[in-house]
Amino acid sequence: MTDEETPPPLVLRHDDGAICRLTLNRPARRNPLSLEMISALREALAEIARERSLGAVILAAAGPVFCAGHDLRELAASRDPLAAREIFTACSELMLALQALPQPVIACVQGTATAAGCQLVASCDLAIAADSAQFATPGVRIGLFCSTPMVALTRAVPAKAAMEMLLTGDAVSAAQAERLGLINRAVPAETLEDEVAALAERVVSHSRLAVGIGKEGFRRQLDMPVERAYEYASALMVRNMLAEDAAEGIDAFLARRPPVWRHR
Amino acid sequence: MTDEETPPPLVLRHDDGAICRLTLNRPARRNPLSLEMISALREALAEIARERSLGAVILAAAGPVFCAGHDLRELAASRDPLAAREIFTACSELMLALQALPQPVIACVQGTATAAGCQLVASCDLAIAADSAQFATPGVRIGLFCSTPMVALTRAVPAKAAMEMLLTGDAVSAAQAERLGLINRAVPAETLEDEVAALAERVVSHSRLAVGIGKEGFRRQLDMPVERAYEYASALMVRNMLAEDAAEGIDAFLARRPPVWRHR
Amino acid sequence: MTDEETPPPLVLRHDDGAICRLTLNRPARRNPLSLEMISALREALAEIARERSLGAVILAAAGPVFCAGHDLRELAASRDPLAAREIFTACSELMLALQALPQPVIACVQGTATAAGCQLVASCDLAIAADSAQFATPGVRIGLFCSTPMVALTRAVPAKAAMEMLLTGDAVSAAQAERLGLINRAVPAETLEDEVAALAERVVSHSRLAVGIGKEGFRRQLDMPVERAYEYASALMVRNMLAEDAAEGIDAFLARRPPVWRHR
Repeated sequence: MTDEETPPPLVLRHDDGAICRLTLNRPARRNPLSLEMISALREALAEIARERSLGAVILAAAGPVFCAGHDLRELAASRDPLAAREIFTACSELMLALQALPQPVIACVQGTATAAGCQLVASCDLAIAADSAQFATPGVRIGLFCSTPMVALTRAVPAKAAMEMLLTGDAVSAAQAERLGLINRAVPAETLEDEVAALAERVVSHSRLAVGIGKEGFRRQLDMPVERAYEYASALMVRNMLAEDAAEGIDAFLARRPPVWRHR
Repeated sequence: MTDEETPPPLVLRHDDGAICRLTLNRPARRNPLSLEMISALREALAEIARERSLGAVILAAAGPVFCAGHDLRELAASRDPLAAREIFTACSELMLALQALPQPVIACVQGTATAAGCQLVASCDLAIAADSAQFATPGVRIGLFCSTPMVALTRAVPAKAAMEMLLTGDAVSAAQAERLGLINRAVPAETLEDEVAALAERVVSHSRLAVGIGKEGFRRQLDMPVERAYEYASALMVRNMLAEDAAEGIDAFLARRPPVWRHR
Repeated sequence: MTDEETPPPLVLRHDDGAICRLTLNRPARRNPLSLEMISALREALAEIARERSLGAVILAAAGPVFCAGHDLRELAASRDPLAAREIFTACSELMLALQALPQPVIACVQGTATAAGCQLVASCDLAIAADSAQFATPGVRIGLFCSTPMVALTRAVPAKAAMEMLLTGDAVSAAQAERLGLINRAVPAETLEDEVAALAERVVSHSRLAVGIGKEGFRRQLDMPVERAYEYASALMVRNMLAEDAAEGIDAFLARRPPVWRHR
């Protein structure tokens, strides 16, 4: 095969200590969530889930656009129920895999995120965006309402704001996205990488066991009535308390010394 | 019958293309949600639901007040379980009918909205208010806690803000209502009509089929655990993908031409 | 016993008319939620629940810190499943008791509230804080993720903000807490007592019957799908309508005179 025939990887992976960076790598096509891109991301996440030495994932993108959502050419060619179902099911499973991952995922949003790309940001545990980035769920403009992105969007922002994004397709600025809760904060583009790195460092400074227990519980307890949520969360606390890292953390705190995590 | 004996319609309806405007029309009485007014609104919504040429509804009100909630004289005369139940059930069904309507409903709030009137705004898909408008759930002041308005209010604004409105009965300004997410935005009174019209135009520029699928899914998926919500929303996406408008929308987008909707 | 041997009460109670003030009273230890403190609070709440002449509770704290969460020395000594479970179950039951109390509870937050202390604020119906107060869920720093505080926190603030507090352990300022909805508002420290008193007076000026019905319904309806929530809330409205105070309140309103509550 010549160089021309070997396409670059869809997703780049670069590890730095306990932090793993995944980069969507089809900048010229605006990093679409094609079935191939979805597969590449899911494979990367499945690997990361098994690598207990990793404590956080940064989800970034190459080029000026973060992610433009589904691949419209692929969608256009998938107008039968089975092919269409495959795409939306695979994409939904990717979003659920982000939530099921033991490690927190931080979106590093350098450019516009639309449709399933906006859903990707909403599905990450944390998100920081360049203040020039924009967010939109514009499916309605092509006659295909952003119903699956709606699942993540409505669990991140207030109802009327979600409705306006979904019904108009209009973009919100990074500043608005911060006010709505879609991202943790908007920062100047030139400090984006530093801010994301600092947040990731903060996360990986903690016990991965404790972080993993907490992240596992976050969505699960939110879907329960409050009494059941407390039963479930109390059981998580007991499990966490009996682990080595909690013993070490409490001892270290009482002795005013820094803790040494074993991550178990 | 003389003119005096013929009361004006409780609800005015005026259609302009795909946009239907309903106006609460008892300004001298502050547009109370009497059983008659509730019936008139429900009948209007039932008609609109069948008129597939309509793409959006504007819910407006005549006079200085948007809606003062239940008709207190009627309530005072309904102190038996059956009569009371009839009123609250009819009103709850009106709110659910707004959500079940295929067309998005935009509240055009020119004045104060209180109790079930505030619930009406909270139940609309979108809302724009004059910056002089106010919002309150003051039932507690007359010994009748706004329990049904609470259902809509707590699904629109953060818990502690809802609690304060419900427990004090105090009004919030339009600017506060915007910050809380109860309305999409507050605008100067003199631009209210233009802003609402522009938003409605935006909504009706889209495929009514896509909009209807999306609106149908919005509340339903929110009441599901996230995994089930994704299954449900994926099925909506497949249904939407196989419709004519999605084919047209995607083709038009790829060909860089404006889409021509058939609304099916 | 000498004076030295009689510790001061863990929780101070002071009633002023219909307002009951509970004060966490271990300032030198930062008012930890030890099993004894939890018991003292639950006993106080159980008593208050039976005293129908009380209309609101202010939850305050002595010293510079509001509440630092669990007692770490006690936790350190509780590293077996039964002892650990006892602590987290007792604490969760305290939080549920705050919600089940007929009277609204207003947190008066004069200083920092962390971990289960932050959960306490999140679990109160209303909260006002000095603008110097801070809020954090820093369990992750000692290897013990704040899973039970997460239950209350995620029902008060947007998901990404809750995630950041939980995953980093970083504190948010009172101003940020207000923007997030964790508290109703931040005020200058010197006006905190007056603001809390004014809010409590506002609440107790109403019918305790109506307030009790409303508070009972608040969380319960939030955990239901919207259709069922409306059925439930309609039944609450009927129950409320048939009570003496609703009759009095509506009559008084129509007669433009102040109501005289019998609280039944």
